[in-house]
Amino acid sequence: MSSTRGRFISLEGGEGVGKSTQVARLAAALRARGLEVVETREPGGSPGAEAIRTLLMEGTAGRWTPETEALLFAAARADHVARTIRPALERGAWVVSDRFLDSSLAYQGGADGLGAEAIRTLHAIGSGGLLPDRTILLAMPLHEASNREWVRDAGELDRFGARGADYHARVAQTFAALAGDPANGPARYRTVGALGDVAVVTDRLIDAVADLL
Amino acid sequence: MSSTRGRFISLEGGEGVGKSTQVARLAAALRARGLEVVETREPGGSPGAEAIRTLLMEGTAGRWTPETEALLFAAARADHVARTIRPALERGAWVVSDRFLDSSLAYQGGADGLGAEAIRTLHAIGSGGLLPDRTILLAMPLHEASNREWVRDAGELDRFGARGADYHARVAQTFAALAGDPANGPARYRTVGALGDVAVVTDRLIDAVADLL
Ligand SMILES: Nc1ncnc2c1ncn2[C@@H]1O[C@H](COP(=O)(O)OP(=O)(O)OP(=O)(O)O)[C@@H](O)[C@H]1O
Ligand SMILES: Nc1ncnc2c1ncn2[C@@H]1O[C@H](COP(=O)(O)OP(=O)(O)OP(=O)(O)O)[C@@H](O)[C@H]1O
Ligand SMILES: [Mg+2]
Ligand SMILES: [Mg+2]
Repeated sequence: MSSTRGRFISLEGGEGVGKSTQVARLAAALRARGLEVVETREPGGSPGAEAIRTLLMEGTAGRWTPETEALLFAAARADHVARTIRPALERGAWVVSDRFLDSSLAYQGGADGLGAEAIRTLHAIGSGGLLPDRTILLAMPLHEASNREWVRDAGELDRFGARGADYHARVAQTFAALAGDPANGPARYRTVGALGDVAVVTDRLIDAVADLL
Repeated sequence: MSSTRGRFISLEGGEGVGKSTQVARLAAALRARGLEVVETREPGGSPGAEAIRTLLMEGTAGRWTPETEALLFAAARADHVARTIRPALERGAWVVSDRFLDSSLAYQGGADGLGAEAIRTLHAIGSGGLLPDRTILLAMPLHEASNREWVRDAGELDRFGARGADYHARVAQTFAALAGDPANGPARYRTVGALGDVAVVTDRLIDAVADLL
């Protein structure tokens, strides 16, 4: 990692907490400070990973076993890292990603029960274990998030949104445990409250990356 | 594994050695002995895995990095095992597959240099490490196989066929090393000469599974 390498930030959290809204706003705020910023998302973020995304998001909730799903996410992430994230960081750009590894830890690792070790092993094999410099967990009560998601989607849910309240509670619990676990390196995680005016939430995010600027 | 569990046979080898021809003939010979036989192939062999196959076979040779490719093969195999192979074996059917794990060991593990350990780890996570009862390596000199492949494809090569002679030599070398390594369990592998009349090759294959009948 050279001194001109860019910084890598991921925004995490369950459905409807405002990740996509805030990725765009945080990227704009960083650009206003003169940085080159690549906005990206998972699953996806590169042509190959977007093709894998289609397989992951379409079809019935039970289309893939948890094991197959974890491998497909890891494959999409490997392509995303190789084709989009590493080249951007190497030329000194910042990368702001809507979801990254922690979503696999929370959904397949936690809610589906595969465990963190399997997910981290896949990430080591596929992506050389690349971690964000900062991961921000957008946190809010589950019922608030599902109201928002409902409004946005007007009733059309993908394979993940279609899962039950129990599933989403396990996702939220795993996210909270990851962000709170000192073994994960307290320097990487910040938890930010996602309730309130969008501009107020953006200010919280800028605070949460200020030490990287 | 109950005593009524079926047997799982994989046919392996490089492009053009006659795997697809012989899978059909071996399956027919086993059916003539009164067995239920599921003929299948990799990548593919289940609806989900066939969708992943399309991603793997289309596009340019460098579309995916070796790491992404290995994860996509492992994902396709996990679906194939969960949806097709395990259900067949559990109801007592035999399964004859055109390629399986050893192709990933030879192509991504050997020729692409990812190593056997990474491939076996992906297989453990994705497919519970399921191994065939018998793996038959169809072996012939490389130039004979590429002549055959050329005739069959009339010049249209997929992402793997399009790779150079060096690549295919490394694949063949890894297959031979796998079949010859006593650490892999000598009971699983047989090497069968693939040159000669198709019916003669089929007789060799029947010999190579006779102890399982
Ligand atoms: N601070 C906020 N206050 C009120 N509404 C908000 C706020 N932030 C986002 N929203 C609205 O909530 C909905 C969900 O936001 P968004 O799509 O950004 O969430 P998300 O976390 O990306 O969801 P998903 O995981 O489903 O992609 C949208 O309709 C959005 O406009
Ligand atoms: N014993 C044989 N003698 C002569 N030709 C053969 C023999 N077996 C197969 N062939 C021919 O060789 C070509 C390749 O055979 P086949 O497609 O079965 O190989 P394959 O191993 O499945 O190849 P690929 O890996 O490319 O799918 C075909 O045209 C087939 O008809
Ligand atoms: Mg979103
Ligand atoms: Mg074939």
